[in-house]
Amino acid sequence: MRIAFQGAPGAYSEAAGLRFKPSAEPMACKSFEEVFSVVQDKKATHGIVPIENTIGGTIRRNYDLLLRHELPIVGEVHLPVIHNLVALEGTTLKDVKRVYSHPQALAQCERFLLGLEGVEVIANYDTAGSAKMISESNLRDAAAIASERSAEVFDLAILKSAVQDFSENITRFLVVSREALTQGKADKTTIAFTVPNEPGALFKALSVFTLRNIDLGKLESRPIPARPWEYLFFADLKTDREDSRCARALMHLAEFAPLVRTLGSYPSWKEPELGE
Amino acid sequence: MRIAFQGAPGAYSEAAGLRFKPSAEPMACKSFEEVFSVVQDKKATHGIVPIENTIGGTIRRNYDLLLRHELPIVGEVHLPVIHNLVALEGTTLKDVKRVYSHPQALAQCERFLLGLEGVEVIANYDTAGSAKMISESNLRDAAAIASERSAEVFDLAILKSAVQDFSENITRFLVVSREALTQGKADKTTIAFTVPNEPGALFKALSVFTLRNIDLGKLESRPIPARPWEYLFFADLKTDREDSRCARALMHLAEFAPLVRTLGSYPSWKEPELGE
Repeated sequence: MRIAFQGAPGAYSEAAGLRFKPSAEPMACKSFEEVFSVVQDKKATHGIVPIENTIGGTIRRNYDLLLRHELPIVGEVHLPVIHNLVALEGTTLKDVKRVYSHPQALAQCERFLLGLEGVEVIANYDTAGSAKMISESNLRDAAAIASERSAEVFDLAILKSAVQDFSENITRFLVVSREALTQGKADKTTIAFTVPNEPGALFKALSVFTLRNIDLGKLESRPIPARPWEYLFFADLKTDREDSRCARALMHLAEFAPLVRTLGSYPSWKEPELGE
Repeated sequence: MRIAFQGAPGAYSEAAGLRFKPSAEPMACKSFEEVFSVVQDKKATHGIVPIENTIGGTIRRNYDLLLRHELPIVGEVHLPVIHNLVALEGTTLKDVKRVYSHPQALAQCERFLLGLEGVEVIANYDTAGSAKMISESNLRDAAAIASERSAEVFDLAILKSAVQDFSENITRFLVVSREALTQGKADKTTIAFTVPNEPGALFKALSVFTLRNIDLGKLESRPIPARPWEYLFFADLKTDREDSRCARALMHLAEFAPLVRTLGSYPSWKEPELGE
């Protein structure tokens, strides 16, 4: 199994891929688009992308990419996120004039960063990539917000550990592949749908699940590009798509929803037991 | 009327403030936090912040700031967004090695940017601020994605106009003040609520509106920091809070929702008529 992820070695996505399958071979990609395209082109068997973080919210781009490609979701991973302020060996907190990281990571350490006086906060495309840049460009007056593993990989020191504002900081990742799961172990189904632009439309859409006692997890609304203020919804159903209630609910939904698409049915994340 | 906005002069938020009240005095702020705090501290009478864009989606930070402060929403503004690639006079498209802008603006020009070969795309905190940086640091090999007005303000040339991927690119802004509207002209109400973590809870929450024929606009779900996978919802109701149906619906919702808060009741945006 080769799992494509976005970022440099040491990225949180790489760690999530190894949580999904410890024996897998990680494959670094430059962008989320590339993660999807290397799976499509059979250069990787699986791809892993972050979809949601308890603090920062949804990574909308990846919902868009799921819709744009025909790669089914086959699994999910929860990863606790522990951010650190990392810098070159010898750099002290007082030397730091600029802090680099991914916008989501910066948002997750907002209070900590506001407490650093006279420091410029710069958004970068990548947490591990920010660590890499500091290491390779030998930036003595800069630091990055990144994982402990990035510090190891790029030979940096941890100036301050666990600098995120909230301790319950977890990112949920989705794993995609070319073939849908067939073993029937799924207990979670992610769908996308639109509703007609009329009063009560979303209520009717949710009723097809509630009336069948299907529990709803996340519900995400997204404006539809080029159709101002019409919304596309993404929902997690706590059931297997093969379950007859779920199949009937989706048929019922399709009776009035202009678009209904199943993005994948997969086992929900279970924390590995201690010692495993 | 003094309207605080985030960004440098020439920012889209400044233009939105002037759309709200052409005679208002704009007041530039460094961050969204500052917009809220200068209104709170009476240094400005109003504040304006973007809340949603048809392409890029919701600006979640600003929902958080609405919740964290006690400043009611008193109005909204729709602003068509036209992005341009701007650079120093004399810089050609071939010279451009780096493009700076706000992550949302970069996301909105993704296809255009992917078409530029060998160009590094760098996220910055501000569109107009990116234009300012290019102008002040005299960067001959860089460009910014910014408004036409930023180009004027910072004496830059437009290398390419209207580079956004979709033409229907509109940002919705919310206007906050210290006092809620009292004139009774409101036809839109924004609320925040949480639901108990049990099956069908959101369906029940929406029923209090649907059963009273109250139309729902945007519905946004947001994970609650420090309570993994519990969600806070933001909803726009197409009615005045003073309407008895709305007041009763909100009381009904409060019977089972742990949190219900009205963030403001205000007139929905009406496009100015031609010639106005």
